[in-house]
Amino acid sequence: MDLISDLNQLKAADLYIAAISDDAIADLSQKLPKDICLVHTSGTVGMDVLSRQSKRGVFYPLQSFSKNHDVRFDQIPICLESNDTETMTLLEQVAHKLSKKVVHIDSPQRLELHFGAVLVNNFTNHLYALSQNHLKNKGINFDLLHPLIEETTRKALTIGADSAQTGPAKRGDFKTIQRHVNLITDQQLKEIYNLLSDSIRNHSKSK
Amino acid sequence: MDLISDLNQLKAADLYIAAISDDAIADLSQKLPKDICLVHTSGTVGMDVLSRQSKRGVFYPLQSFSKNHDVRFDQIPICLESNDTETMTLLEQVAHKLSKKVVHIDSPQRLELHFGAVLVNNFTNHLYALSQNHLKNKGINFDLLHPLIEETTRKALTIGADSAQTGPAKRGDFKTIQRHVNLITDQQLKEIYNLLSDSIRNHSKSK
Repeated sequence: MDLISDLNQLKAADLYIAAISDDAIADLSQKLPKDICLVHTSGTVGMDVLSRQSKRGVFYPLQSFSKNHDVRFDQIPICLESNDTETMTLLEQVAHKLSKKVVHIDSPQRLELHFGAVLVNNFTNHLYALSQNHLKNKGINFDLLHPLIEETTRKALTIGADSAQTGPAKRGDFKTIQRHVNLITDQQLKEIYNLLSDSIRNHSKSK
Repeated sequence: MDLISDLNQLKAADLYIAAISDDAIADLSQKLPKDICLVHTSGTVGMDVLSRQSKRGVFYPLQSFSKNHDVRFDQIPICLESNDTETMTLLEQVAHKLSKKVVHIDSPQRLELHFGAVLVNNFTNHLYALSQNHLKNKGINFDLLHPLIEETTRKALTIGADSAQTGPAKRGDFKTIQRHVNLITDQQLKEIYNLLSDSIRNHSKSK
């Protein structure tokens, strides 16, 4: 792959994929020729931000990437959008080479999907971190929870999260909830505990 | 296995395991003979609730159980506690027949562990349910998030949740956070979104 640092040196290509930060996409679009086919990879930015290019689209791999951790790319859903049939055909060809799961999702739906992804990825991961942090402070090995974490995920994906819900909040076991709250010294963690317990209760009541 | 419904018909045994609801344990202990060896299976109730029995203990399998879903029992950590060496030896023998992971955990530590388990199990599962519910209302297939959920778990267990944290809150990307908040019509979900986003930010600042 040739690296360039000057957009004027950009070589001719059938497709340009702007895999850059959300806020930089509009600016890049303005600096590039009108007649290229340009797509971005953002989950939250609409396709219209590329309005300078008549052939535009979105190529959004629905996964969270971290340095030093490889992912199985063929399992990642790739969400495509374009204003142009020819561009869409091109995007589909590229997407199918990378993944077995290729879907068409428009900009408003992609934003909803990204929101859903934040709940199941960023927020659950943060709960893992909060739990690990709490247990570390108490001298308890977090590894003891690894089988539970694996099982929770497996169960939610097989029987569904609604059926898989267990625990003191679901049961309305206020004694245990109070015992837990008494353990928490961090005010924000206490708020999280109470709010999520409330939400679990409301969610099961509305079934 | 013989079933009885009258405690007077209880047969002689080396070990009695009370796998019953937390609130019923103390009462059962009072109704059983003093000279038996009795343990309970609760994560949150102290061993002392069995004070009538001189040989007492706890046999706590650290897993969440659901009807219609089998678990691999040999992977479940079994946390043991006893006031009596002989009873502990017996508990270890039974535990090692069921699982490869047997640990000694006292009552206060077991309660901490149970709290940590609620964060990584009940709360993450509830976030899956909230996400699924939101996307269902928008006509989006939740299955698209399955690979992300699997990857989030795998990554947290390999590189650790702190290193695995990504997303708008971690990046301080307020535009995306605002776009998400604008999607949320449920007031409690909005509170959860804001509180967990704040907590992620505070957590990364304190590193």
